[in-house]
Amino acid sequence: MKRFNDETFMLNNDTAVRLYNNYASIRKVPIIDYHCHIPVEEIRFNKRFRNITEIWLGADHYKWRQMRVCGINERYITGDASDYEKFEAFASIMPKLIGNPLYHWSHLELAYYFDIHEPLSLKSARNIYDRANTIIERPDFNARSMIKASNVALLCTTDDPADTLEHHVALANDDTFDTKVLPAFRPDNALDIEKASWKSYIAKLGDAAGVDINGADALKAALGSRMDHFERCGCKISDHGLYDVRYMPCDDAAADRICREALAGGTLSDEDVTAFKTWLLEFLAGEYEKKNWVMQLHYGVTRSINTKALEALGANTGFDVMHNDTRATELIAFLDALEKKGDLPKTILYSLNPNDNAVIDCVIGAFAEEGIRGKLQHGSAWWFNDHLDGMTEQIKSYAALSTLGNHIGMLTDSRSFLSYTRHDYFRRILCNIIGEWVELGMYPDDEDELAAIIGDISLNNAVRYFGFDI
Amino acid sequence: MKRFNDETFMLNNDTAVRLYNNYASIRKVPIIDYHCHIPVEEIRFNKRFRNITEIWLGADHYKWRQMRVCGINERYITGDASDYEKFEAFASIMPKLIGNPLYHWSHLELAYYFDIHEPLSLKSARNIYDRANTIIERPDFNARSMIKASNVALLCTTDDPADTLEHHVALANDDTFDTKVLPAFRPDNALDIEKASWKSYIAKLGDAAGVDINGADALKAALGSRMDHFERCGCKISDHGLYDVRYMPCDDAAADRICREALAGGTLSDEDVTAFKTWLLEFLAGEYEKKNWVMQLHYGVTRSINTKALEALGANTGFDVMHNDTRATELIAFLDALEKKGDLPKTILYSLNPNDNAVIDCVIGAFAEEGIRGKLQHGSAWWFNDHLDGMTEQIKSYAALSTLGNHIGMLTDSRSFLSYTRHDYFRRILCNIIGEWVELGMYPDDEDELAAIIGDISLNNAVRYFGFDI
Amino acid sequence: MKRFNDETFMLNNDTAVRLYNNYASIRKVPIIDYHCHIPVEEIRFNKRFRNITEIWLGADHYKWRQMRVCGINERYITGDASDYEKFEAFASIMPKLIGNPLYHWSHLELAYYFDIHEPLSLKSARNIYDRANTIIERPDFNARSMIKASNVALLCTTDDPADTLEHHVALANDDTFDTKVLPAFRPDNALDIEKASWKSYIAKLGDAAGVDINGADALKAALGSRMDHFERCGCKISDHGLYDVRYMPCDDAAADRICREALAGGTLSDEDVTAFKTWLLEFLAGEYEKKNWVMQLHYGVTRSINTKALEALGANTGFDVMHNDTRATELIAFLDALEKKGDLPKTILYSLNPNDNAVIDCVIGAFAEEGIRGKLQHGSAWWFNDHLDGMTEQIKSYAALSTLGNHIGMLTDSRSFLSYTRHDYFRRILCNIIGEWVELGMYPDDEDELAAIIGDISLNNAVRYFGFDI
Repeated sequence: MKRFNDETFMLNNDTAVRLYNNYASIRKVPIIDYHCHIPVEEIRFNKRFRNITEIWLGADHYKWRQMRVCGINERYITGDASDYEKFEAFASIMPKLIGNPLYHWSHLELAYYFDIHEPLSLKSARNIYDRANTIIERPDFNARSMIKASNVALLCTTDDPADTLEHHVALANDDTFDTKVLPAFRPDNALDIEKASWKSYIAKLGDAAGVDINGADALKAALGSRMDHFERCGCKISDHGLYDVRYMPCDDAAADRICREALAGGTLSDEDVTAFKTWLLEFLAGEYEKKNWVMQLHYGVTRSINTKALEALGANTGFDVMHNDTRATELIAFLDALEKKGDLPKTILYSLNPNDNAVIDCVIGAFAEEGIRGKLQHGSAWWFNDHLDGMTEQIKSYAALSTLGNHIGMLTDSRSFLSYTRHDYFRRILCNIIGEWVELGMYPDDEDELAAIIGDISLNNAVRYFGFDI
Repeated sequence: MKRFNDETFMLNNDTAVRLYNNYASIRKVPIIDYHCHIPVEEIRFNKRFRNITEIWLGADHYKWRQMRVCGINERYITGDASDYEKFEAFASIMPKLIGNPLYHWSHLELAYYFDIHEPLSLKSARNIYDRANTIIERPDFNARSMIKASNVALLCTTDDPADTLEHHVALANDDTFDTKVLPAFRPDNALDIEKASWKSYIAKLGDAAGVDINGADALKAALGSRMDHFERCGCKISDHGLYDVRYMPCDDAAADRICREALAGGTLSDEDVTAFKTWLLEFLAGEYEKKNWVMQLHYGVTRSINTKALEALGANTGFDVMHNDTRATELIAFLDALEKKGDLPKTILYSLNPNDNAVIDCVIGAFAEEGIRGKLQHGSAWWFNDHLDGMTEQIKSYAALSTLGNHIGMLTDSRSFLSYTRHDYFRRILCNIIGEWVELGMYPDDEDELAAIIGDISLNNAVRYFGFDI
Repeated sequence: MKRFNDETFMLNNDTAVRLYNNYASIRKVPIIDYHCHIPVEEIRFNKRFRNITEIWLGADHYKWRQMRVCGINERYITGDASDYEKFEAFASIMPKLIGNPLYHWSHLELAYYFDIHEPLSLKSARNIYDRANTIIERPDFNARSMIKASNVALLCTTDDPADTLEHHVALANDDTFDTKVLPAFRPDNALDIEKASWKSYIAKLGDAAGVDINGADALKAALGSRMDHFERCGCKISDHGLYDVRYMPCDDAAADRICREALAGGTLSDEDVTAFKTWLLEFLAGEYEKKNWVMQLHYGVTRSINTKALEALGANTGFDVMHNDTRATELIAFLDALEKKGDLPKTILYSLNPNDNAVIDCVIGAFAEEGIRGKLQHGSAWWFNDHLDGMTEQIKSYAALSTLGNHIGMLTDSRSFLSYTRHDYFRRILCNIIGEWVELGMYPDDEDELAAIIGDISLNNAVRYFGFDI
């Protein structure tokens, strides 16, 4: 029997252990975190945390969700209970989380950042709380130190087009911190024309761009101007959060009409909304391709499905789910329309529904470009799927249907400075799969080739793919 | 090599064996079978069986189905062949059923109830038939003895609202049998307004309730009255068999119009049917919540797809299948509508299509209630899915996306008195998964925590969740 | 650690090795390849190949696809690069294909046909190219020798109804070659009424049949005549490539109207197209049933999704994908409609989307016929799914939901003479699964039963099912 959570965690064969130690350990091979939600100002101003409750439970709706599911009173989740009470409430559900990635991640984080190796539960809560906080209270424990301790060479935040990016500029000019922090362009607010907030957002966007957005042309101009600004700040990635990739072709004139109707406060039909989104996403994709940016499409999500909770707690508090209404034929039509115009950028597809894995691994094989390894990518198992089985299936399906050697690896998608252990988790799982294949005689035990594959997926493919300069 | 079907069946690591023997064996830990289809009168009148053919093949459309698939003549399935001929026909296909749960269950049943350990095949058919029948013919072998031998503390049958429940009352007053036998409220007949039989059923329901059902209000009154009766008889669970959970909001006035049209013999549009079902299910859910009943929703099924067979053999004879037309967005809208009104009861979701596992495990995380562990549940792998891989996937997905420690465990969904071995099968698989996680260092080898998890999932969670008094 | 690609490849337990060696090795147990795309004239005229590039890369869009995905210039794929340059380009991506079936198949082929056991990569490319070509250049290395070396007892090509089948006739009369080569009837061109080429195809079909096809009746007559011709040439199988199995009932009069409109160059509605296809497929299915032919339905495919590539390279060049728009309810309605009329032939269902596995395994249990083992079949994991995990899942799902002992085994679906190793790959995976079940005590270690199951799935079931005379 292996010891719980020891240095060979998730590495269940000798080859896996060797490969991980030599070519994948995050102590040795730096992290590129090309998609996260860390507020950049927390890095710029080098945020400090008062205790592990703030770090772990201050904003993590993964943890909130499971606490609620266990019947914990909201007071101990997002309410006015004390920090220790909240920590203890979380500790109390830990043993029940057997098999859940939160169980694995939390213990990886305790081990990696705090040298705490025993399991967290109600029994150990006080002791672990105190020991972790002793470290957190040290003067040199802060946002930047966590990033450095995690060996992060580069990370990309997620930013609205109207954002000034002032913090990014400041960080780029700060010689005391050498992890690169780049912005990523996420124009969801500009696409979500069905939302009540769209009109006021458009005004804000216009202000940021110095453009009076009175129609479709002006909208394009404003977004174009912001993309130029993002590009000057080092941006190489865009990101879209979509219900689904839908495709309803729409020309400029129709888009202009829809845009003006929305600006005039009119009500749009569902068709108008879909047409407008298609039109704007096509425009943006073409611009990304011109700038050699990567387009990320995240879809398959229904957000804030519990209205009562939305009203009480707001968005992004643990009430989003996957749906089963993704339409591969529309995704395909969208990609083909771009390809026909020469407007298809490098693209990463992520569906929240794991049933879409095979479709995505198949579709990415139908669009390629000379000189690019994996122009279309299937993003690493995302959100509800980034657990042991979800990652294993994503990796094996990618390997079976596409070329695993091109996989661009892991991302945290997180707003926590301790989430880098998810890269470690991914790399361990990757090494375990490959190690098992080698030990079963399904792949030669060729050190050079294995080092190349694991090095590529852990680091080098992402550097090449995004064109990062690290 | 392990011996076939020995005491460590499905337990493939030492920890699994230890956990099963200490905390899960059905000889030691009683069974709560909260959903089955046993005719209650068979318990009340303590039915005896003439032989194993009657027990095994009298009503088991799982077995019929595979016999037909193997080309067996219907005469040997539901026809006029002798009991031994039927048994022999089933025995003849057994070896081909390698990897099928029928293969595992049948041999578990032979071992557990008849101490027969060799494989069933054409060769062994006569011998096994005779040996099993020798036991079945014993005076003390009957419905109740099978239940007691299975260590069943409590079971819930499935009952129509118009049922008198007289047998349940009689059993409750029978001091000679201490397994609790409770009714469950299954009003499918009241919801299925599209069926030719609906009108006559409504008359029957009205009679049972003493209500003249002439419209929507009266229908609610009649069902309310029956629910009160069921409650007095100990009912704590409702159950619905649906094509899918659809959501088309419908007010009382519209429901009343639809109801009256149907009572007048009119033809309803598909929209009317869906609206009526939404309306009635919303009403019932609210009542369940008031009574603190659990609502079970079984969906993803297309019934009697082979018309020729339906005409020859009737319904429930082995011609139902799963479909791929489930709509998560409507399920979500339905649950949210209930939650908004404070009408969402504890709910167990079961889809027949295993592709829905991840969606369900995700959706149940978005509705919670303080003080309840797992207010929404993903029902254990159901019907076509309750095999080794299906159960394993259900358990692992539940663990990865929700909190496994809250899982309320297994049910038989069966009309056979020998099906309790499915609880054993489930517990073995559960222990095997958890044992493997422990041995791989993914969970601490902490006897107390493991005992709690396995004890909870095998028994205690169900007791708490349903509020059973055992 | 097992050696790479040795004689126990994919056989990871002792029982698997024993079962494979005794009952499944393709050296010992002949191959029935009931579905392939080999051009029959290549067998008739005993095609020779100039080198391994022609064999491997001349027509294999699986390989082309992965080469493109790796960013290889089209010149080295389908362009004017030299044969060695193309081979080297393919060799260069091989190491990245870890976990891909191409990696396994290619090395199985090198080992089986060329006695080459080292891994292919850029380093070994020249050496392997030369050694393989030395064998290919031998006078006795040709299409027929590859078939004989693969122990193929019978194969079925895929043929258009308008085909003369002259090569099949010639081969049948050729005493120097004893592998049976039968045609299969694939009338996609007659069904695809929405295509611009339909009208001219119908003229060609009419010529072949000696029928003036001016409407629905004449179309049926022409196809009937061609089926008779195919039957005289030994045909026992039909095949259909569909977007999906859709069902929109259509009577002869409506079909005639649609047919005449299409012949007159009119534009058809989507409904007309679906109705016509339903009508024609129902007619054909009834004819197949009369002739005791097997109907294969391949669906779930969107073809040539990359328009730019289609225009540059044509169809079937690596740009087809699976979709997620299959509708189980329509498949069910179609099968039921046939069954009601007594027109349901033996049918093999293949969906390109692996999410459909469980639905198919379930649906095939609802239609049976006395005396036939597995009248409806779930075809072996197809195209994008015929990799280790895809096959494993297809086999395990088939076993869990249907009766594995009735499985009719593997097919190549290939146009290459070296693809017979896919049968070997399948049989190894089958033996590995069964061996594991036996070693875990889930099935008795009964040599006779195991020999029967493996022999049946490898060979005997197909012989019986199709009624082949070998």
